[in-house]
Amino acid sequence: MTLPQTAVDQFEALLGERFTTSRGICAEHGADISHFDPMPPDAVLFPRTAEEVQAIMKICTAWHLPVIPYGAGTSVEGHIHAMHGGVCLDMSQMNRIVRVNAEDMDVVVEPGVTRNQLNSHLRDTGLFFPIDPGADASIGGMASTRASGTNAVRYGTMRENILSLEVVTASGEIIRTARRARKSAAGYDLTRLFIGAEGTLGVITQVGLKVHGIPEAILSGVCTFNDLEGAIRSVMEAIQMGVPLARVEFLDEATIAAVNHISKLDLPEHPTLFFEFHGTDRAVEEQVARVRDSAETHGGWGFEWARKPEERNRLWAARHEAALSIAAYATGTRQWWTDVCVPISRLAECILQTRTDIDQSDLFAPILGHVGDGNFHVGICAKEGDEDAFGKAEALHDRLVGRALSMEGTCTGEHGIGRGKISYLEDELDGAVELMRRIKSALDPLNLMNPGKIFANA
Amino acid sequence: MTLPQTAVDQFEALLGERFTTSRGICAEHGADISHFDPMPPDAVLFPRTAEEVQAIMKICTAWHLPVIPYGAGTSVEGHIHAMHGGVCLDMSQMNRIVRVNAEDMDVVVEPGVTRNQLNSHLRDTGLFFPIDPGADASIGGMASTRASGTNAVRYGTMRENILSLEVVTASGEIIRTARRARKSAAGYDLTRLFIGAEGTLGVITQVGLKVHGIPEAILSGVCTFNDLEGAIRSVMEAIQMGVPLARVEFLDEATIAAVNHISKLDLPEHPTLFFEFHGTDRAVEEQVARVRDSAETHGGWGFEWARKPEERNRLWAARHEAALSIAAYATGTRQWWTDVCVPISRLAECILQTRTDIDQSDLFAPILGHVGDGNFHVGICAKEGDEDAFGKAEALHDRLVGRALSMEGTCTGEHGIGRGKISYLEDELDGAVELMRRIKSALDPLNLMNPGKIFANA
Repeated sequence: MTLPQTAVDQFEALLGERFTTSRGICAEHGADISHFDPMPPDAVLFPRTAEEVQAIMKICTAWHLPVIPYGAGTSVEGHIHAMHGGVCLDMSQMNRIVRVNAEDMDVVVEPGVTRNQLNSHLRDTGLFFPIDPGADASIGGMASTRASGTNAVRYGTMRENILSLEVVTASGEIIRTARRARKSAAGYDLTRLFIGAEGTLGVITQVGLKVHGIPEAILSGVCTFNDLEGAIRSVMEAIQMGVPLARVEFLDEATIAAVNHISKLDLPEHPTLFFEFHGTDRAVEEQVARVRDSAETHGGWGFEWARKPEERNRLWAARHEAALSIAAYATGTRQWWTDVCVPISRLAECILQTRTDIDQSDLFAPILGHVGDGNFHVGICAKEGDEDAFGKAEALHDRLVGRALSMEGTCTGEHGIGRGKISYLEDELDGAVELMRRIKSALDPLNLMNPGKIFANA
Repeated sequence: MTLPQTAVDQFEALLGERFTTSRGICAEHGADISHFDPMPPDAVLFPRTAEEVQAIMKICTAWHLPVIPYGAGTSVEGHIHAMHGGVCLDMSQMNRIVRVNAEDMDVVVEPGVTRNQLNSHLRDTGLFFPIDPGADASIGGMASTRASGTNAVRYGTMRENILSLEVVTASGEIIRTARRARKSAAGYDLTRLFIGAEGTLGVITQVGLKVHGIPEAILSGVCTFNDLEGAIRSVMEAIQMGVPLARVEFLDEATIAAVNHISKLDLPEHPTLFFEFHGTDRAVEEQVARVRDSAETHGGWGFEWARKPEERNRLWAARHEAALSIAAYATGTRQWWTDVCVPISRLAECILQTRTDIDQSDLFAPILGHVGDGNFHVGICAKEGDEDAFGKAEALHDRLVGRALSMEGTCTGEHGIGRGKISYLEDELDGAVELMRRIKSALDPLNLMNPGKIFANA
């Protein structure tokens, strides 16, 4: 679409040089690491205040322009694609850390603050923000996709760590969803409604977050297993015993092979678990002892653990470098990163069936995941431009999601629906999606907020 | 209102003797322990399946009859009052424990299951359901009020412990809000929308819950403080150090006095903290040592702790008997139980100002609370039939909520809005309430679901 000249004039009057229709900048804001072709917006706007966002919403409402909120652009389901044109709201200039309430262990930040920026800022307070989806994502984007990542098993996801949101609604009001108390039974949980709404209900302009005390002691561990069932069973046992695992990550043989090749490591090419333990000195040692016992009972071997930061980094190198190693290893391919999440009792079965399916498909597709939550990723690699390979990737993906759903799982544990999983959401929740649509219509009757995401034809 | 005869015939055809207009039964279902006068429904229905609830919803829609879901009737803000007549859905006959998935540490229950029933059922599995609001509330009611209680500081509230809900919507569909995976990024968080909706959006007919491993060791502790600030500061310090307190309860001097008098105890009449620690043997001993150090630093004395169940019960007797002791001590009064929740850094100030205000009001009003969350209760006692005392109680309550709001707190940490806090919800969240209303209208356009709760004129 072309923006009406009057709208352009209004945006320019409001934002000056912070409004642009530059083709380069629009192209950047319509491209991500998803497997979809990019879809650039017609303009990119860089608001600095909630009031500017409000004024933008009013202009967009007047001209019926779609609005796509944009954080760091690190999501993987095409969330930032301008399916129906319109304007991209790049929130990166709203990146102030508004308040740190150290005594209450909470902070208030603008949505463009990234998680690394926040943790750098917090360093001297003894506090940290735990959610780690891998990329240096923005807090607003992480809220919008209900992000989680490696230490959700201990600290929860964005859902559990957001105390309140300030939101500019589709109808242009600035609202606050909650006060700063740790818990509340006051009315509908609007905070949780906007978390994971993928920008389809409003624009997040401020986020109140819980933060946590940096643990006295951090220990890392690695353990190799002869088979996947043993690895999963040892994690289940540790969780049932109440061991408060801070992270527990799984890499499959294919991932280890990629990392060995690219990063010149020589890890045994077997299912491998990477652990992290947080607590007091005594508590983490006790945790390590229990996990080692449980791992050994289930066929784990070569258990190593480390306390010093440099040794911890060395132990975890394979996990930290997994995504980049896979990209480098599978050069010339387009990667289709997806995730599902199943009850942990079904996880081994789900991963094994997926591995067999991949092996029969002739594609390279490593598996890694956050096993404490039952959540795993598959990076399906298909040769760029090879339509046949893409067809196979699509079919593999379809079977993967179907398998997770058949095991009472979800079509996405942490990536979100975006463009890519709209039909699976219907498969997963059926009639409940109609309720979501009614909420969407009630709060965004013109369907201007990130249209084409979560719902078909929306 | 009088029910139309055709509706009566339809209910009788559907439910037989599980439909009643008995005045006694209706009166029971319209009375609770709130300070409001009872408001009985016109009929009480006892459904046994989601399909029956669905059929009831269709009849109620046809005749525009209000529907009030009823669990164990233990809520305290008049949630179960039939403000506009209509039918009460007593869910107590939907009390099956549908599934226990021990490996996944989750269960599926019908809404009429009570928390004690669930814990009795789980005893042999090594698992337990931690949320403890005091009363033996039903799981459906606890979901609807977003209940929490004494060990939310460690295990979270109903919000964090519900995995999925089955709901009969106002329009009569049976929907499921989520699958059984531990986390999901699939669409809007309908689970959280129905949690705390107080029956205003639909009828909960099944609840999927997280359960937890029964800890190896449980230790209880009690500590007396010369002043409230010291008590609160020692809790804040313990939390900041990462001590995973399982419970930390505060009783003020007035509560201790009531308990001493009624239960023949001889506790020092000072601010007192009651602790519970969960973990391995070593871990709980370490926790106790840290908490004792921190308490002593902040003027705590007489720290006692116990491990055996009978000793733990003895130590915690004052806390367990607090509510009944207050009722017995303040015989001849009507009690107005309310709660607020503030950031913990403001908690001492908020409680102290409230204590001063109570002392000036000439009313008996003990204070007790879940200090780890910043949440406290006041039991305002006013002589039955004494209008002047009731006016004072109302003014005291109004100032209490205003004080909590002025400290960035919420008008209710765990009781809910019900009839009693409708105007305070507006004070607290202002424009956000309009969004809640739009959601209510979208999902319940005829305003049949528990009308008169959460919103004025609804």
